[in-house]
Order: sequence, then C-alpha cells, then structure tokens
Amino acid sequence: MIYFDNSATTKPYKEVLDSFLKVSSDYFANPSSLHRFGGQAEKLLSQAREQVAQLLQVKTNEIYFTSGGTESNNLAVKGAALRNRNKGKHLITSSVEHPSVRLAMEQLEQVGFDITYVPVDRNGRVSATDIEAAIRKDTSFISIMLVNNEVGTIQPIKEIGEMLKRYPTILFHVDAVQGIGKVPLTLHEDRIDLCSISGHKFHGLKGTGVLYVRDGVRITPLFSGGSQERALRSGTENVAGAVALAKALRMTFDRSTAGIENMRNIQNMLRQELSKNERIQINTPSENSAPHILNFSLNGIKSEVFIHALEEKEIFVSTTSACSSKKKTASTTLTAMGVPKATAESAVRISLSYDNTTEEALKVIEAIENSLKQLERVMK
Amino acid sequence: MIYFDNSATTKPYKEVLDSFLKVSSDYFANPSSLHRFGGQAEKLLSQAREQVAQLLQVKTNEIYFTSGGTESNNLAVKGAALRNRNKGKHLITSSVEHPSVRLAMEQLEQVGFDITYVPVDRNGRVSATDIEAAIRKDTSFISIMLVNNEVGTIQPIKEIGEMLKRYPTILFHVDAVQGIGKVPLTLHEDRIDLCSISGHKFHGLKGTGVLYVRDGVRITPLFSGGSQERALRSGTENVAGAVALAKALRMTFDRSTAGIENMRNIQNMLRQELSKNERIQINTPSENSAPHILNFSLNGIKSEVFIHALEEKEIFVSTTSACSSKKKTASTTLTAMGVPKATAESAVRISLSYDNTTEEALKVIEAIENSLKQLERVMK
Ligand SMILES: Cc1ncc(COP(=O)(O)O)c(C=O)c1O
Ligand SMILES: Cc1ncc(COP(=O)(O)O)c(C=O)c1O
Repeated sequence: MIYFDNSATTKPYKEVLDSFLKVSSDYFANPSSLHRFGGQAEKLLSQAREQVAQLLQVKTNEIYFTSGGTESNNLAVKGAALRNRNKGKHLITSSVEHPSVRLAMEQLEQVGFDITYVPVDRNGRVSATDIEAAIRKDTSFISIMLVNNEVGTIQPIKEIGEMLKRYPTILFHVDAVQGIGKVPLTLHEDRIDLCSISGHKFHGLKGTGVLYVRDGVRITPLFSGGSQERALRSGTENVAGAVALAKALRMTFDRSTAGIENMRNIQNMLRQELSKNERIQINTPSENSAPHILNFSLNGIKSEVFIHALEEKEIFVSTTSACSSKKKTASTTLTAMGVPKATAESAVRISLSYDNTTEEALKVIEAIENSLKQLERVMK
Repeated sequence: MIYFDNSATTKPYKEVLDSFLKVSSDYFANPSSLHRFGGQAEKLLSQAREQVAQLLQVKTNEIYFTSGGTESNNLAVKGAALRNRNKGKHLITSSVEHPSVRLAMEQLEQVGFDITYVPVDRNGRVSATDIEAAIRKDTSFISIMLVNNEVGTIQPIKEIGEMLKRYPTILFHVDAVQGIGKVPLTLHEDRIDLCSISGHKFHGLKGTGVLYVRDGVRITPLFSGGSQERALRSGTENVAGAVALAKALRMTFDRSTAGIENMRNIQNMLRQELSKNERIQINTPSENSAPHILNFSLNGIKSEVFIHALEEKEIFVSTTSACSSKKKTASTTLTAMGVPKATAESAVRISLSYDNTTEEALKVIEAIENSLKQLERVMK
C-alpha cells in the first residue's frame, strides 16, 4: 500500500501507541482524584502540557487539550466571539478556511455577528493588506489558517500578525492543523492569540488536539462542568491522549528538518513529472505552498473515478479534503481561487508524510500515467 | 492496590485496549476518505454505532459519538435549549446534577434562559410530582440524571418519563453516565429524548462518549465543520475510540447480572460493617440507590485527611466527586440533601466495579477502622 493521504489523517507512530497503552493501563486514574494515583495521572498530564508548550515555544498555561482540530477551531472562533461580543460583532476570515472555521462563523452569523470573508488570489492566498482593509471599528476577531488543507497554500501569517500589532484589541486565531510540522510558526512573535492543532495530523491519535490561548486572553468555554483545563474545557482529561499528542509532536519536531526536505523533494518530483502530462493541471502554487500537498486536476476525469482507479493499485489519495469528499460539491478552495468548476471537479490531492519515499513517488507517477491511459481508452 | 474509585474512572479492559490498538494501527484511515481504506474505517465506525445502538435498544441513527460525558451533557443541554428557544426558554433540572449539566444551564441563564432547580428529598431524590409542578407553558427541556455521582441515588426516570408523556413538546434528557451498566434504563419506553454516556466509566477509554438523540429530535451542534456524525458533531471521527467504547459496553452488558450482584453484595457488607462504627454516618440511601456507590461521613475528620490515610495502605477512594474534589467546597449533593456542612466536609465516596471482591472489601473495612483509630490518637 502507498498511503498518500496524510492531510486526511496519518498513521500513528508506534511509540505514540505504546505511550498511550502504557498510560491507559498503568496510570488510568482520574487526574482530579485527590489520592496519589490520581496525582500520578495529573503529573503525566502536566508533563505533556509542558512538553507541548516547549515545542511550541509558549508558556505551559497557554496550552489547553481538546478532542481535535474541529473542537479547537470551534472553541477559538465561538469562544472568542461570544466572550468579546461587547467589543464588537464583526469577524474577519478568508474564503478558503476549513469548514470547522467557516461554519462556526456561519453559526455566529445567525446569532447576530457580521462576517467578512476576505477573498484569495489565484494561488489561494489572502493578503495582509486586504485583511487590514476589511477591519472596522467593531472588528473583534480574525481567523486565518496557516496552510490550506486542499491545495497547501501558506497564508502570510507573519505579515498579518505584524499588521495586527497596530490593532491590539483584535484577537488573532490561526488554524495550524495542516501547518504544524510542515511550516514554521512562531506564536508569540507573530502576535497570535489563539492557535489550533490536531494530533492525528502528525502521527498522534484521533480525538486529541490542542488549543493555544495566549496568556490573558479570555474566551467562553463550549463545555462547562468540572472545571478541568482551567475551566476552559471541562471533562475528565484524556491523559493518555495528551501524552500521545505530546510524544507525536516531539517526534515530529525532532525529525522535521529531514522530513520536510524529503517531502519537498517528493513534491517537486511529482510536480515535475505530472506537469509533463497534457491532461494534468497542477493547482498547488509553486511558491508559498507547504511541502506535503500537491493538488492537481485531470482534465475531463472526475476525481472520484480517478481515486478508485488508483486504489486498484493500492495507492490511496484524496479528492480535495476528506471531510468534504462525501458532499460531492466542488472544492471550496479551488472555486475561491477562480478555478473553473469542471477543473475543480476533477481535482486530486496527494498529501505526504515524512515517511513517504521517492520510490513510492515513482510508483505513483507510473500508476497515474497508466490509470489515465486506461480511463482514456474507456472514455473513447 | 485496592481501587475503590470507579465512579471517578475505571481501568480500561485489556480487550478494549487491544481493539483500540488494532484499529489505530491497521485501520487508521479517515472514514471520510473516499478510497477503500477510508471505507474500511467507516465500516468499523458503523459497526460500533450499530453495536452501541443494539445494546441500548435504540436505532443506529440515534447514536452519536462524542469525546465524553461532559461533551454529551453540554451538547444535549445547550444544543436542545438553543435549537428550541422559540418554543420556550424555561428549563428544568434537579439541584443535584453533575456540574456538566448544572453549569451548562447556568451558561444558558446568562443568555436569557430561565432555569428551575427542583429540590431533592433527604435521600437526594427528586419526585416526578415536583417536576410536573415546575412545568410552565414555556418549558422546553428537562434534564435529570439517572444515578447521582456523589451518593448513588437513583432518580425516578421511569415515572418522570411516564409523566412527560402528557407533555409531548418538552425534550427529556437523562445523564446516564453513572447509571449505565449499573441500573436498567429503557430509552424508548421511558420517553427519553436525549441520553449521555461516557466510555471511561465502564472500562472504556477517556475521551470517548455517546449522546443518544431520539429520531426526529433536532438540536444545535456545538462543533460545526466537516458534517461528521450527521452534522451534529463535526470533527474527524475517533474510530478506534468508538470501537473501544462499543467493546467496553458489550463486555459490561455481558457481565452485568453477575457484576451488579457482586457490587451489591460488597456494598451491603461495607454498609453493615461501617455503620457499626459510631463515628461513621452512611449518606447513601438504602433504597433507590445504585449498587456501586457508598458515601459516608467520618464525624470530625476532613475527607481529604482520610483519603490520604487510606492511600498509605494502597487503598484509593474519593472525596465525593472527582471533578469537584479540588475545589474544596462541600459536596453539592449532600448539601442539597440537607446534610450539615461539617458532615458534608467529612464525606468519603467508595465506588465499585464488577471486578472488586469481598476480600478487598474486608481489607478496606479493616483499613478504615485502623485509620480512624490512628487519626483519633493524633487528634487527642
Ligand atoms: C485546516 C484544517 N483545520 C481543521 C481540521 C479539523 O481537524 P480534526 O480532523 O482534528 O477535527 C482539519 C482536518 O480535518 C484541517 O485540515
Ligand atoms: C453523573 C456524571 N455526569 C457526567 C460526567 C462527566 O463525564 P466525563 O468525565 O466523561 O466528562 C460524570 C463524570 O465525571 C458524571 O459522574
């Protein structure tokens, strides 16, 4: 099997599963229990929090464990907007955000918030200038993703953060779910108030995530209850999941220099070879794009048909994003980039991990060429 | 070690961890991915959903996977109240609910809802009559727990459900987190619209839960996004966690007859022996209480001191509920039952699993007597 669908989810590292298993069976106590056994669980949780904080170069009390990227995004967007509604009900985001940001915004729209969706250029990129132009007196919150999950475009987070230094009351959230471990991010330096990451995108476990909330920033919780996670996210803590996330993040960061270079090489190779084929149009921009995503369209062939042709050869890739794949609507990002509907409907996303190899890439290139030929024969 | 803190959390079954591990490593694909590998993950998720539905005797499409009891309760309370706000902004609950229900209600109060907290009798029990008396024209939602987590009182869910058959527009939510596998519950028959359970309370994993939502009932999601869980709970599904929860629930139900009898025997033994001691007052009512919880107070000795005295002997019990244990306030439930403050502050909760033994109980009884004598010597 060649797994080229790492933006949908990744295979958990063996060491991550080992840690999860160890903590779940030997330190299963509730960290809120007052006895020593509970204390041990609490210590493991604190260590995981410290480790994540160190890796992200932030303070320990700025890390909150959640159940994933979708929860982190919803908590950030709704929590910040609702808490600061008195400061202003205007929110800004881009037209290419993940549904967990976009639809959270739409839910807020229904309860009286006003949203500006800043458009992107044909590379899928927003500009700090356009965002600044959208700022109003009542703007209280801005959410922009680090890396787009459909085409891999990197957003100018640094520039936006720099610009926002002149607007100290506006909260700035970054959805870094696709960016972490692939693209550098300096939370404090870049004036980021809130940032979402998700364990299963970097070989951690599904159902684990983190929301970074800058010291002093107040948001409304989505879950009230036993006041865990400093009352920002109640619920018995998934200690083993947090330990697993910390471990996955450390292993990812430890390997990131070589891992990123490897992905970039494979991506370049795929880009070069695939663009030789007349039928293929590469949608991922060649500049300001993450190393792990290559999105391309197969003129005249529906994505779904092609996905299944490749799976016959034990190669697994995606139609744009996993979560919109069942809706059979054309990719939001490609549409926002101005790509014609037919091209968007034939888009395929390859997404890599540190562990993919150039041998796999060669096989995939060959398989793509062969599948195309087969499908062309059928179509004739 | 003698672990008598099973209401705080339980040790995951080995088979549950095995399943989690197997699914996480061999079927790690995103169930939303269109390829066969994603399809396999989706199939496992559907099977888990079917299994849970069968065990709870409800329809498959009435089961939604969440990250735990706190999420299920918040989703039920806030989701139902917000979705049905036009039908009425009056909500009813009891004065002894878990904080994840009580504080969710308080959050709603801040946005214009009106809450009635129906009081309990000295056994910690609400009555269907009192609840009916609290119903107004604008009552849209009622939430009552099956088993109280601090003292183990069973609420008259059947009677309340029966009474509510005369009020078809009011939604009825049951927090069954402490009751599942300990006390029978028939969701359809008892006219229950929403019901929360949590995996880690029955030897499943932390970070996994279920919300049952009766067919046709509409609630507002807390997480918007990729439309997973029929758009009620977006976010990449924790497939391995769902499979683990289904397995834990099946194993629990398979063993429940003998397991419940065993717990009841141990509870009776503890009750009988401990009540011989003048210093000890049993707070758990002898009728209408779950088989796994025994709450008692140690006249003149603070709970925390006693917990630590027992942990010296490798015995782990709780000060009332785990999640309020760090707040050092007296138990809400005992206070609502009219127990004096001093008695409430010296409350200790023993909570059992199917796997505890009478031998353990004998050791605990002896340890309690010895610890009491030691502490009395110190106090003199
Ligand atoms: C950019 C982006 N944000 C958020 C999410 C949601 O994260 P999760 O799958 O952990 O809910 C995803 C992935 O699905 C994503 O790609
Ligand atoms: C009655 C009750 N409801 C809800 C919860 C919350 O469940 P969880 O710990 O899975 O968040 C608990 C336990 O903490 C509980 O005892």
